[in-house]
Amino acid sequence: MNLDLERYKISHPASFKIADFDPDERSVEKSQKSNIKDLMKSLNDELEILQEKLYAESKHKILIILQGMDASGKDGTVRHVFEGVNPQGVDVVSFKSPSKLELAHDYLWRIHHNVPAVGQIVIFNRSHYEDVLIARVKQLVPESVWQNRFDHINNFEKMLVDEGVTILKFFLHISKEEQKIRLMERLDDEEKHWKFNPDDIKERSRWNDYMAAYQDMIQKTSTAWAPWTIIPANRKWIRNYIVAHHIVKFLKDLKIQLPMIDFPPETYQFE
Amino acid sequence: MNLDLERYKISHPASFKIADFDPDERSVEKSQKSNIKDLMKSLNDELEILQEKLYAESKHKILIILQGMDASGKDGTVRHVFEGVNPQGVDVVSFKSPSKLELAHDYLWRIHHNVPAVGQIVIFNRSHYEDVLIARVKQLVPESVWQNRFDHINNFEKMLVDEGVTILKFFLHISKEEQKIRLMERLDDEEKHWKFNPDDIKERSRWNDYMAAYQDMIQKTSTAWAPWTIIPANRKWIRNYIVAHHIVKFLKDLKIQLPMIDFPPETYQFE
Repeated sequence: MNLDLERYKISHPASFKIADFDPDERSVEKSQKSNIKDLMKSLNDELEILQEKLYAESKHKILIILQGMDASGKDGTVRHVFEGVNPQGVDVVSFKSPSKLELAHDYLWRIHHNVPAVGQIVIFNRSHYEDVLIARVKQLVPESVWQNRFDHINNFEKMLVDEGVTILKFFLHISKEEQKIRLMERLDDEEKHWKFNPDDIKERSRWNDYMAAYQDMIQKTSTAWAPWTIIPANRKWIRNYIVAHHIVKFLKDLKIQLPMIDFPPETYQFE
Repeated sequence: MNLDLERYKISHPASFKIADFDPDERSVEKSQKSNIKDLMKSLNDELEILQEKLYAESKHKILIILQGMDASGKDGTVRHVFEGVNPQGVDVVSFKSPSKLELAHDYLWRIHHNVPAVGQIVIFNRSHYEDVLIARVKQLVPESVWQNRFDHINNFEKMLVDEGVTILKFFLHISKEEQKIRLMERLDDEEKHWKFNPDDIKERSRWNDYMAAYQDMIQKTSTAWAPWTIIPANRKWIRNYIVAHHIVKFLKDLKIQLPMIDFPPETYQFE
């Protein structure tokens, strides 16, 4: 495989440009699809085992953050990457527009409440990053407010990491053209109508503003303790594979140990 | 009154020494007690009105943090300073030893969940500062862990302040001798037995370690955005007065405005 999987992790955020990343990832040819789907199957199996160990060890806390434009495939990524994994110990939290109670508190209030406990994997479908994306593009708060948030977020994530959380942040990168295709599918297919939201059209018209906000966000919040990974997401099988690869790699690096038992199993006799 | 009330607020934390502060505040003579009690009554009235406006305005969020050794008067301070204030809009949160669920998360998780919403006053009876006090003195976590927490806490409080929270932090400063008197009272008076905890004796034996931890904590977390105020707390009427003075002053400085109405009241007619 001619795919350098490490290059998607942003290690030099200052020079990060979205335009340097191809949402199609043309370096992967269509003929590799079945090969990649096989690799994906092994990753699914590995993830299933790693998650069980993580749960048994009850030491590490895993936070996975998915960000991306409408129709970039956040739901689909969760479904395909975590296929077969025991839902006990894996929670998905989808952050929609904040409620009145949430708005009455600081923007990290609802976020912090949902971070993982030991042994848990929590997946954020959207996150506190909306507070420097939609809040910025739609001017929901003044610039003087959202500009402070990059520091807040970096400090918040640093605290989590210091206290035992592993944070993986994925930006699902699709092209404007690909979004159009997917939104049109939602309109054409009656079974997908529920996924369509007329507001998506309005958000789409701000595409360039969003890309600028994403680029700035990744430059400012890709830290040593919680780097961003950019996922070419126009083709779903490539997207799923790269996300799964990074999650499995991170979990392997934790060197999870099953807890030691303090009894010799043979001392127990059953009638 | 010969009392410089501003000197209790720590503006130069680097040079802060607990020993420079007299828990008896001998500069106040006993003959001033009835005078101070009268002033306290006006402060209670002012606080009642300020809190009502705060609630109506629904803009600011007030977080009051009380820290101090066992029997330093945290409960009594809440009772006397907030006497007469409408309990709707004022919450007291007492942080005890963390539960199993709380321990499974980072130490700021349960704290953040309880911070105030707009229009609310929340009083923390003990707080996240226990995680650099008891956690340090009793070595519940290694030094490499609690040393990071000063930065976490300063950053966490900065985020809250940026997002509209006013933070007031009071250290109720009693002498070791005064603590002895109060703990003995709890043993002598059957109606106070419930307040006595045999563990308090063990904690008391670590008095010097606690004072060193408090001094370090105040040096490191008395920030421009959330300074500590040291309260001479051996005499309760002095303690209550100084705490009330500072809270009322902070609230007045917010220049709370009742919300403007957008209807002329005389347009409404009742049969």
